Amino acid sequence: MSEEIKGFSKLSKDKKIEWLTKTCFRDSNSAKKILTQYWNSNNYLQKLHDEFSENTISNYYLPFAIAPNFLINEKIYSVPMTIEESSVVAAASKAAKFWMKHGGFKADVINEEKTGQVHFIFHGEKKIISEYFDFVKPLLFKNSRQITKKMESRGGGINDIQLIDKTSDLKGYYQLFATFNTVDAMGANFINSCLEKFSKTFSDSINKFNRVGFKKESIEIIMSILSNFVPNCLVEASVACNVSDLNKLEPKSKNFAQKLVKAVEIANIDIHRAVTHNKGIMNGVDAVAIATGNDFRALEAGVHSYASQGKYKSLSEAIIEDGIFNFKVKLPIAIGTVGGVTNLHPLVKIALEILQNPSSKELMKIIASVGLAQNFAALRSLVTSGIQKGHMKMHLSNILNKFEVSEKEKKSAFTYFKNKIISNSSVEKFIKKIR
Amino acid sequence: MSEEIKGFSKLSKDKKIEWLTKTCFRDSNSAKKILTQYWNSNNYLQKLHDEFSENTISNYYLPFAIAPNFLINEKIYSVPMTIEESSVVAAASKAAKFWMKHGGFKADVINEEKTGQVHFIFHGEKKIISEYFDFVKPLLFKNSRQITKKMESRGGGINDIQLIDKTSDLKGYYQLFATFNTVDAMGANFINSCLEKFSKTFSDSINKFNRVGFKKESIEIIMSILSNFVPNCLVEASVACNVSDLNKLEPKSKNFAQKLVKAVEIANIDIHRAVTHNKGIMNGVDAVAIATGNDFRALEAGVHSYASQGKYKSLSEAIIEDGIFNFKVKLPIAIGTVGGVTNLHPLVKIALEILQNPSSKELMKIIASVGLAQNFAALRSLVTSGIQKGHMKMHLSNILNKFEVSEKEKKSAFTYFKNKIISNSSVEKFIKKIR
Repeated sequence: MSEEIKGFSKLSKDKKIEWLTKTCFRDSNSAKKILTQYWNSNNYLQKLHDEFSENTISNYYLPFAIAPNFLINEKIYSVPMTIEESSVVAAASKAAKFWMKHGGFKADVINEEKTGQVHFIFHGEKKIISEYFDFVKPLLFKNSRQITKKMESRGGGINDIQLIDKTSDLKGYYQLFATFNTVDAMGANFINSCLEKFSKTFSDSINKFNRVGFKKESIEIIMSILSNFVPNCLVEASVACNVSDLNKLEPKSKNFAQKLVKAVEIANIDIHRAVTHNKGIMNGVDAVAIATGNDFRALEAGVHSYASQGKYKSLSEAIIEDGIFNFKVKLPIAIGTVGGVTNLHPLVKIALEILQNPSSKELMKIIASVGLAQNFAALRSLVTSGIQKGHMKMHLSNILNKFEVSEKEKKSAFTYFKNKIISNSSVEKFIKKIR
Repeated sequence: MSEEIKGFSKLSKDKKIEWLTKTCFRDSNSAKKILTQYWNSNNYLQKLHDEFSENTISNYYLPFAIAPNFLINEKIYSVPMTIEESSVVAAASKAAKFWMKHGGFKADVINEEKTGQVHFIFHGEKKIISEYFDFVKPLLFKNSRQITKKMESRGGGINDIQLIDKTSDLKGYYQLFATFNTVDAMGANFINSCLEKFSKTFSDSINKFNRVGFKKESIEIIMSILSNFVPNCLVEASVACNVSDLNKLEPKSKNFAQKLVKAVEIANIDIHRAVTHNKGIMNGVDAVAIATGNDFRALEAGVHSYASQGKYKSLSEAIIEDGIFNFKVKLPIAIGTVGGVTNLHPLVKIALEILQNPSSKELMKIIASVGLAQNFAALRSLVTSGIQKGHMKMHLSNILNKFEVSEKEKKSAFTYFKNKIISNSSVEKFIKKIR
């Protein structure tokens, strides 16, 4: 087991590693070597990365990859994807290639509203708090002008602030419910700064509102925070083609298009399938989000909670109408292309440049299209050869790399394992045999 | 815009970068330089990382950091966390430190069952498919023995297979619903291999089951796949201490413990808050999952869908009883400590060794504890100083790094921005002024 340590965060990176490897490893030198082997040789660059988080001791590598040939709204993109799961980038590329030949992806931002709340408790008469809200509302806007000024000059800002009565759910519970337009920023810092200012103004202005017995202590602010539930920050992506063209893609499958539709229907009615179906969409969504410096936990929370309204369901829809296969996805995607770490991580800047420095709306469309492509690719495998075929091929390659095989050994392993079960131990056995 | 390209995946990494930078960048040389600057100088190591995915052109860095002093079930852990969001590791460490002094985290695995389905369509009599299922069930087990053998020797395998009638939801829709114990593996490959084998056996054995008119074509297999909805792969983590001790942590706050309870109550009744509340938990969960080579999209899907059953709610609970503050979280966490890429990524091996090579059950407990710590830390900030204070400090540090500031400049920036609004432009202005 490890040990208690005081003042760890204040140690230098070297001292942190020194303590950690001495405490947790039998062979502390080899652990130290691995941790430092991942450092960048450029000290300035390394320091930049160290300071994105706290107590950083090394760089964790995720593959930075490219899925080319995404035709979205008549524009071709090479999409940067950052993901550790094998087959995801290959699947996206394959789907993109097919749809490029069939009209490409159409994508549209339906809305881009973000929200935040000041949660507070007030046990007095509803009439008083309503009147106070009407009184204070202009001040909420006015006092946050210093924060909103710049956002307004870019076309964004606070859309509205409302008082929401939640007392039927919890005694005395109200919200200041605010909606925002954060233009090309994800806006978390902006929104939270606004909300904390609202909260202060809301508390501090009570004296100015002369009402007997209504004083600062009458209101208990619990917290002020943006919401990751963003059903009104919505983008839709779709593809469509002739059923006959789609069926040509998988000629061995009897009515491939119909099977795809059935697979989506199943995801709409069975939660066990729906969750996995949507997870596949998120493989694509997160990979682009990470590459472009966006917070994938926020996206995951927003998307899955959106899928769960009423009953947890598929995020994509597939129908066949008049011989046309229509496939679309609607996703709440609150992201940004400026602000936050977007402009700090050198590879994020590269990723955004690869996408021709998109606006956040354009990036929403790209992300939704990649999500749809991923869903298409996963369903395609599932209803035909099964998911394991492609997976196991990549898995074999990964296991082989562990044994530092030559290209020749690799080739013979691929031949040998074509119809055999791939596991760490079966590969190890095979390698031992041929060496 | 980018261009269409044929055979991109077959190009060497250099040629991929050559094409990409020529196509997407004005200054292709500087883009090339940045992409290659992130390559590891050890060619073998770089090749290993390149082949985790397809079309890899560089390594995307995420900070690999340590949150020390986690006391979980009487054992001290230094927890590796991989996350780009500033303040998360600091928050985890701070929460861990407080709870170490107050009994630490208690964690327990409630169940570790995983599931998968073969989804199929059958339009005949229910009686026939039921009888056929009883007939074929032993064969489903028998024919997958080659896949399950090794898992069984480790104490796992297929728990059960059931026939589920879903025809009231969709005409002719049935499932083979299988439950698995995958011991220390996440088990995706194992489960999917089993399911694909079930599917084949299920189709192929119909000839052996003599029933007029019931033939191979009577059953249409749609797909076979594990489920990321894992409500029976559940771990619970909790902390408890005297209300008076907790209140001492935030002496300026009037009844801090009560405010924490109120904040959790709010997350239980309001979806806008619940989603964000749970997102905070996932900041901790994902950071440990990524560091230990687990698939965070699977965890996100499982956790948020679990939170959405009935109505989307908080995953944590807080109550005060007899002067004791009790705080706990229940999370479906399907992870592994062997198999997949867990043993291939050198930093994952280091992460697991830092955690003293835990079993998957032990890792489930660690992850749930870190999730709870993160939730505690977020709520603590929210109900006291607000979330922005810590965030903006880290944000300032990140922005400053962009301007390559000296330590002295950094110091004066921190003093200057103590009570001022931090943005890219305000920092830039300040730096220009002092230089």
